[in-house]
Amino acid sequence: MSIPSKDSITAAHERIKSYIHRTPVMTSASVDEMAGCHLFFKCENFQKVGAFKARGAMNAALKLSPEQRVKGVATHSSGNHAQALARAAKILGIKSFIVMPRTAPEIKKRGVRGYGGEIFECEPTLAARESTLAEVVKKTGATEIHPFNNYDVMEGQATCAKELFEEVPDLDYIIAPVGGGGLLSGTALATKYFSPKTIVIAGEPALANDAFRSMQSGKIEPASPSTSIADGLLTSLGDKTFPIIYENVKEIITVTDEEIIAAMQIIWERLKIIIETSCAVPFAAVMKDKSKFASKKVGIIFSGGNVDLNKVGKLFS
Amino acid sequence: MSIPSKDSITAAHERIKSYIHRTPVMTSASVDEMAGCHLFFKCENFQKVGAFKARGAMNAALKLSPEQRVKGVATHSSGNHAQALARAAKILGIKSFIVMPRTAPEIKKRGVRGYGGEIFECEPTLAARESTLAEVVKKTGATEIHPFNNYDVMEGQATCAKELFEEVPDLDYIIAPVGGGGLLSGTALATKYFSPKTIVIAGEPALANDAFRSMQSGKIEPASPSTSIADGLLTSLGDKTFPIIYENVKEIITVTDEEIIAAMQIIWERLKIIIETSCAVPFAAVMKDKSKFASKKVGIIFSGGNVDLNKVGKLFS
Repeated sequence: MSIPSKDSITAAHERIKSYIHRTPVMTSASVDEMAGCHLFFKCENFQKVGAFKARGAMNAALKLSPEQRVKGVATHSSGNHAQALARAAKILGIKSFIVMPRTAPEIKKRGVRGYGGEIFECEPTLAARESTLAEVVKKTGATEIHPFNNYDVMEGQATCAKELFEEVPDLDYIIAPVGGGGLLSGTALATKYFSPKTIVIAGEPALANDAFRSMQSGKIEPASPSTSIADGLLTSLGDKTFPIIYENVKEIITVTDEEIIAAMQIIWERLKIIIETSCAVPFAAVMKDKSKFASKKVGIIFSGGNVDLNKVGKLFS
Repeated sequence: MSIPSKDSITAAHERIKSYIHRTPVMTSASVDEMAGCHLFFKCENFQKVGAFKARGAMNAALKLSPEQRVKGVATHSSGNHAQALARAAKILGIKSFIVMPRTAPEIKKRGVRGYGGEIFECEPTLAARESTLAEVVKKTGATEIHPFNNYDVMEGQATCAKELFEEVPDLDYIIAPVGGGGLLSGTALATKYFSPKTIVIAGEPALANDAFRSMQSGKIEPASPSTSIADGLLTSLGDKTFPIIYENVKEIITVTDEEIIAAMQIIWERLKIIIETSCAVPFAAVMKDKSKFASKKVGIIFSGGNVDLNKVGKLFS
């Protein structure tokens, strides 16, 4: 595996096309007016499993050799990648082994089981997740598909920005959220290859600003434990994602949890669509730094829409 | 004004086309599986002002004579019609006078003012609303545009089902919610003219089942005061809407508030879109009476998506 090229991203897009949605690009005159620019929202909240993760997991699974397929795939994830990988495995008729912290929401576990994934519970620490996954891989011979630090996964995530550029060819900016950096590095590569004049920016929670700090220091700064509500963005960057981000992303804008909630509320109320907290971060960045984007054409990747509605009341009250 | 004809609905569609969205029709494999039928959701929650009401109000305003336009339009409404009419008036550069109960949510009042509408507050009773509106009309000479008991409004609402039939030509059923009956009578007429083999059904809150009772007795049964959460559907039928509904709607299915909330939660979680409580009623009807719709192609009009997010917590907890 090597850094995805223009051709390999195009090939990945062909490979996964029939297994994913080509998600719509939404616009809103009233949100544009509030933001002072022209916004194009690429709605991966409408993607299979409710998030862009369906792309990367599907691409990685489809690239397995016949020998690898026999033994299945494995990962550790408490979130959308777990379901995305279990779904990809189900489509291919192969096994999936998912290590999840025992504290993961029951609804996520049900989702994985619904796709026939086998769950291995562990303590909710990174060390426990990694050691449990190592055991599972040793026992089963399954291929590990990392949620983001994997070029095949990155290649799949890159197809999202590629689709957006096909629909809106002259964007001044494209903004993605950053956690481990799979979506952001894929977005950065797709921009470099398919829309090189577009400037890539990332949005990150201020309470989990390790990517921002990494851009300053020039090396991967590990994420500290964080209470940010953007719970999909609390991971450290990986050694495959960071160099691509460092080279191709112009700026990381950090936003507070209050700004994230305000942004999310605008999207729910104006666009009438459900986006998750992590997904609201890039739009929050635009609203925070309006002068930068004034009158520009700005693409925003809406990463996902998996929300626990039982907790929504607390956010908006 | 007379009952809308096939030609007049087609003309209305041309008339309003550039002022409204052609809203998308959404489908979901997972929701189809839960419901046991093939569902096509016509998403008027994405319509201008967040509801189908934009259609009827726009059509009625565009049909005013030059003399009428000079004096403006008036209505009483605490909900989506108020904003829809104020918006239509703003587009035409004419005045709008909106009678609203003083208890109407501040957000709705702001919406009306945002479109330049002049608000007249009154006590929250039907008598007060009607007498205040009569005074306003007398004073201003404005033309009253009733929210539903008006053939021009009905003609506009009919364009919604017309669009759905253009996209999905062989529906077995079409289901709309029923309050005052503007959307349902328009849907029934559009079905009669554009898809006569499709069966028209309505969904109604069990706590506000006046339309159900009217269908039984053959005359308009007035709505009783109701506490149903489907607050857009608490009105009695009108003398223009009822005869069309009585003749063309096969059945009204009533659903409890619990069934409405459960249906709304499925749509939010699976389709990742925001629909309001009243809007969830037809889908709740399908989920209640699955055997009737088994394996059929069912069109559902999603009427609107205007939700007070500060109250959402209470619904889902």
